[in-house]
Amino acid sequence: MAPGPGFSDEKNETLCESESTVYVHNPHLDGMKDDILYHFNLGTSTHNLPAMFGDVKFVCVGGSPWRMKSFIEYIAGELSLEDPKAEYPNICAGTDRYAMYKIGPVLSVSHGMGIPSIAIMLHELIKLLYHARCTDVTIFRIGTSGGLGLEPGTVVVTKQSVDATFLPRLEQVILGNTVVRSTDLDQGLAEELLQCSKDLGQFETVIGNTMCTMDFYEGQARLDGAFCSYTEKDKQDYLTKAYESGVRNIEMESSVFAAMCKLSGLKAAVVCVTLLDRQKGDQLISSHEVLHSYQQRPQILVGHLIKKMLQTSASVAVLDKKTVLQAPTT
Amino acid sequence: MAPGPGFSDEKNETLCESESTVYVHNPHLDGMKDDILYHFNLGTSTHNLPAMFGDVKFVCVGGSPWRMKSFIEYIAGELSLEDPKAEYPNICAGTDRYAMYKIGPVLSVSHGMGIPSIAIMLHELIKLLYHARCTDVTIFRIGTSGGLGLEPGTVVVTKQSVDATFLPRLEQVILGNTVVRSTDLDQGLAEELLQCSKDLGQFETVIGNTMCTMDFYEGQARLDGAFCSYTEKDKQDYLTKAYESGVRNIEMESSVFAAMCKLSGLKAAVVCVTLLDRQKGDQLISSHEVLHSYQQRPQILVGHLIKKMLQTSASVAVLDKKTVLQAPTT
Repeated sequence: MAPGPGFSDEKNETLCESESTVYVHNPHLDGMKDDILYHFNLGTSTHNLPAMFGDVKFVCVGGSPWRMKSFIEYIAGELSLEDPKAEYPNICAGTDRYAMYKIGPVLSVSHGMGIPSIAIMLHELIKLLYHARCTDVTIFRIGTSGGLGLEPGTVVVTKQSVDATFLPRLEQVILGNTVVRSTDLDQGLAEELLQCSKDLGQFETVIGNTMCTMDFYEGQARLDGAFCSYTEKDKQDYLTKAYESGVRNIEMESSVFAAMCKLSGLKAAVVCVTLLDRQKGDQLISSHEVLHSYQQRPQILVGHLIKKMLQTSASVAVLDKKTVLQAPTT
Repeated sequence: MAPGPGFSDEKNETLCESESTVYVHNPHLDGMKDDILYHFNLGTSTHNLPAMFGDVKFVCVGGSPWRMKSFIEYIAGELSLEDPKAEYPNICAGTDRYAMYKIGPVLSVSHGMGIPSIAIMLHELIKLLYHARCTDVTIFRIGTSGGLGLEPGTVVVTKQSVDATFLPRLEQVILGNTVVRSTDLDQGLAEELLQCSKDLGQFETVIGNTMCTMDFYEGQARLDGAFCSYTEKDKQDYLTKAYESGVRNIEMESSVFAAMCKLSGLKAAVVCVTLLDRQKGDQLISSHEVLHSYQQRPQILVGHLIKKMLQTSASVAVLDKKTVLQAPTT
């Protein structure tokens, strides 16, 4: 944990046990007898967090609780960790703010819609991983989005999360003052996800910038909200500018996700499917079945990468074991 | 509906059937064959919205779906409209984004946490009320909050919703440009709610300003988030300044609720219970039972006012009928 106020975006590596610890940057936490993670209905004195979560290596987050339950069922099947027909209990069953599921090293958590909602969840998730003494954690946001210049159903892996003026930053107000945070994501992880899509060959995936907005209607230049004070041409001009700046999709959580994961040393990626091409429309007119199949794509992609990463680490473990066993004879 | 772009905060009264219509300000809506309210899983071509919702006179919104179900059960009992033990179906059962319940003239809708989440819901709710041709609608947000200088459990009826610099405004980004909207609420309605609390005599209620923030931890000067770069003194200084400016509680939705209700001509009030005194702590350490009983207070207060308003309008109807009946004889 960083020692005092005024932390920067850079990790304070000298104080950490290893490069891959989950960081909190809050000197007040150590002085607290108990830490209640209110919106998860969990706490350090009521739950044995290291025993419950110490083995977590992958966290997947997404807006919808149903989708995050479906992800844990899917990944359990993919990793052959449990009967895929089994019931997975909601770890946050005592609250309806978020839903959380776990299978082996994979945690799946819902975050609701918008920056404030995902930020509350991430504060408590980062503290949970810290209290549980997790290491080497990779985190993915799997979501839905509006696309720009892409066939609906295309998956976008975020290169940079940008704001509504196409700048890669998050403005946050702390004690009434505006603080700007970087929204960098792990480029290596993004490339690995692109490679996974090529391995799978099931759907189109691109790397591009993701615009993160505070509103779904006026904030994304939609013409179908309760209020709209601009023309179709104004909308098209704005979306064209976004496209020209490198934006390929629009959603509502990526910037604070990127900023908070960077601050806490979590290797992070944002993987969103585009449900429609915003230059062609605003309303989601595709059938329920089509939209449902699109929504499975980010989970298929992330599931494939998790499987691959676990297989690689298992091979490394076997290799390490062999080296140790061979050591006395050499 | 307002005729074109560039609408102001003022109602365009000349175009409306009566003063009490629910306004949308979007010239594009009339040209749409169908309007899909995606996050409600409702639409104008799939549902008969006037038949389903045309009689709505009161809308209650709150963050938690469980709380909004509990409210509809409570109000059904209060209004003697149905067996209070009956099951109320979730009208938005086809989605997990929001939950919606209805009994007689009362609609209860959840909105999740934070400005973006409630804004999506309000865009679709305002369109729903417009398509359903509702008139004379009063809307309440019943929520939870952190208090300033108040005994936990005190209910705050919002006078003005202010931002993190204590100004009564909402900044929104539209087509990349910042637009400032007023967050005025109905002062008469706030006074009526205060009177209801006096009638009830069950708990303390005050009228005060409500600070609406984008974040629960750093945005509200908490010392217990994953990140904290300020001291206890910095926190206390900030909260003291807030108190001195008139702020009595802090939550995360009131500003956009106030702004959007004002734009659409909905008479609106924000009624939040304080779960703790933020000048004395950050964590919610009260027992589940105590917190649960606090959370019932806004619904008791709003329930009482709805009952009172319905009784008054019933008396007026009886009076009108008498006048009509007496007319030929005078």
